[in-house]
Amino acid sequence: MKKRVCDLGELGLIEKIKSQVLHLSSDVVGIGDDCAVIGTECGESLLATTDTLIEGIHFLRETCPFFDLGFKSLAVNLSDIAAMGGTPKHALVSLSLPPEMEVDDFEEFWRGFFKLANQFQVALVGGDTTGSLRDLAISITLLGTCDPFHLKFRSGARAEDIICVTGFVGDSAAGFRLLQEKVQSFTRPGISLQDFEFLTSRHLRPLPQVEQGIWFGKRKVVHAMMDLSDGILSDLSQIMSGSRLEAVVELESLPLSHEFRRVCDHYGWPAIELALTGGEDYLLLLTVDPKEWPQLQQEYFEEFGENLHPVGQMLLGGSPRKNQPSFLKEGRIAAFLGEPFDHFSGSKRGKMK
Amino acid sequence: MKKRVCDLGELGLIEKIKSQVLHLSSDVVGIGDDCAVIGTECGESLLATTDTLIEGIHFLRETCPFFDLGFKSLAVNLSDIAAMGGTPKHALVSLSLPPEMEVDDFEEFWRGFFKLANQFQVALVGGDTTGSLRDLAISITLLGTCDPFHLKFRSGARAEDIICVTGFVGDSAAGFRLLQEKVQSFTRPGISLQDFEFLTSRHLRPLPQVEQGIWFGKRKVVHAMMDLSDGILSDLSQIMSGSRLEAVVELESLPLSHEFRRVCDHYGWPAIELALTGGEDYLLLLTVDPKEWPQLQQEYFEEFGENLHPVGQMLLGGSPRKNQPSFLKEGRIAAFLGEPFDHFSGSKRGKMK
Repeated sequence: MKKRVCDLGELGLIEKIKSQVLHLSSDVVGIGDDCAVIGTECGESLLATTDTLIEGIHFLRETCPFFDLGFKSLAVNLSDIAAMGGTPKHALVSLSLPPEMEVDDFEEFWRGFFKLANQFQVALVGGDTTGSLRDLAISITLLGTCDPFHLKFRSGARAEDIICVTGFVGDSAAGFRLLQEKVQSFTRPGISLQDFEFLTSRHLRPLPQVEQGIWFGKRKVVHAMMDLSDGILSDLSQIMSGSRLEAVVELESLPLSHEFRRVCDHYGWPAIELALTGGEDYLLLLTVDPKEWPQLQQEYFEEFGENLHPVGQMLLGGSPRKNQPSFLKEGRIAAFLGEPFDHFSGSKRGKMK
Repeated sequence: MKKRVCDLGELGLIEKIKSQVLHLSSDVVGIGDDCAVIGTECGESLLATTDTLIEGIHFLRETCPFFDLGFKSLAVNLSDIAAMGGTPKHALVSLSLPPEMEVDDFEEFWRGFFKLANQFQVALVGGDTTGSLRDLAISITLLGTCDPFHLKFRSGARAEDIICVTGFVGDSAAGFRLLQEKVQSFTRPGISLQDFEFLTSRHLRPLPQVEQGIWFGKRKVVHAMMDLSDGILSDLSQIMSGSRLEAVVELESLPLSHEFRRVCDHYGWPAIELALTGGEDYLLLLTVDPKEWPQLQQEYFEEFGENLHPVGQMLLGGSPRKNQPSFLKEGRIAAFLGEPFDHFSGSKRGKMK
């Protein structure tokens, strides 16, 4: 029987593409990081990233209002630029619209898009608007710039580095579950409208950490950086393989919001699993020189009024077979059997990424 | 009743977007040309263009082999860079794949893509591969560069300019018809396998005129340029409105291939209509200083071994009401009632653009 693309999965397909690349120009840092990095003659590097969102795969119209769809489809790209330490500049937007879509919804999409674009001074410079047979498809390319000395890669981590994240993990995944299951029993004890709003807004309108990314980019003590889009389990594996190191994550250190804890308690959701694999947090995941860690944490708090949360440490090792971090619980290695996210598995349909 | 996007059409939707643009950075030439043009500090302009192709709208799997799909999806973007006078450099490719798609087909797509990418030294620098529910979607962003003094716009045409095209028009449209109607009666007199192959290859594997575009870019006597993607009727209207001029096209001057004429004769297809509105020729449409026209034509022939075909002239005038060129037939104004192409009309489904 012939192999199908769902048998190979995303990483297998990328390997197939790589094997055909003949021409990789010398000014380019290849495929693999959050953005492509292109050297220019005037010193600044050009950053480029693209993401396509397809109805039914990455979002459901029932759970994602059009304003939020416009907002989030730009947010996920902004997060990629932030992850490199770059400044977002110009966007190209391709829309494929089902013919029966209402013009009001089309305008709501753009209101959401421009809400965020104006906040980060991103200019819409081009794109493409065509019809589709059934599903709405959004493809955004975002261009940015970065001083080449401020770029952060997944490959920069060093042994002993402190691994940290810039906010609470799991909120978006819980928000998605709340939306997906159309949980509306607000009167039951333990889930308030406030908790519902907090978690679902973290899912629908994540605020990309652009200023934070630029700030980290300027600091040499930050060795590696990427954005948290698929969950720590999967994303940290990228830093591990990029940097040829192992990593250990202390489960008690995972920063979990009160809202997240309350809702997981209430529904009996597996909080740790959700926090590690839920994804779509669009926070930053970075590794920091351990000697400089206390000072960075303090300066970060002074600058942004928020905590930088240490969650683990990079370690020597890193065999090609082992591509997941280890987990510590109460000082011991804990088994963790969560599945990393793959868009071909179909198990998380309707989840935007 | 609420308005639907198909009621507004592509241009109406673009107007809706424009009305929301608050931030248009000063380094950008706005929405409307074949590419976005972004000024940089090192003198060179950055060009960016994006195109999304959706199965069932822009192509049909039955009529477009995967190799050709990969080839053409890059070709249409290369043509946009060529139309500005630019040099293509870097591509980002987003694929949304139905899970049951065969890996062999996926690899064929990339073979077609890299065939053209390697020919024009375009580096694949990033992208995104995800699943789709049903249809295959391809979104390509192509980046290029251009000396800002060599850029050509739709707005540059002047009254009296000679309008010309760089090859035979209508071949692609005829090739599409041949594929669509699955015409296989090769034994009938008048349509040979050679004609079939010639016309369908012009549709499936158009060769973007990158070298020609760069060559024109360097010549001041070329005042306006764009690529022929929707057909002369629609594309010339863009130059007319961009340059606030009228235009007249001499129908007898339209360069038609022997293969095209033979097949149109055989099937009774309206050759002139197909040549004017069929689109997807991916040739260049340009306007040239009339005094310098003979010399340009001669130099072009010496450089490329092909004719530059004059098809009409730009004229003073250009009222907002009239947005189509006039047509001359045997020296008299000819009525022409063809409809310009719109992706929301649904009348040309399966046509790639």
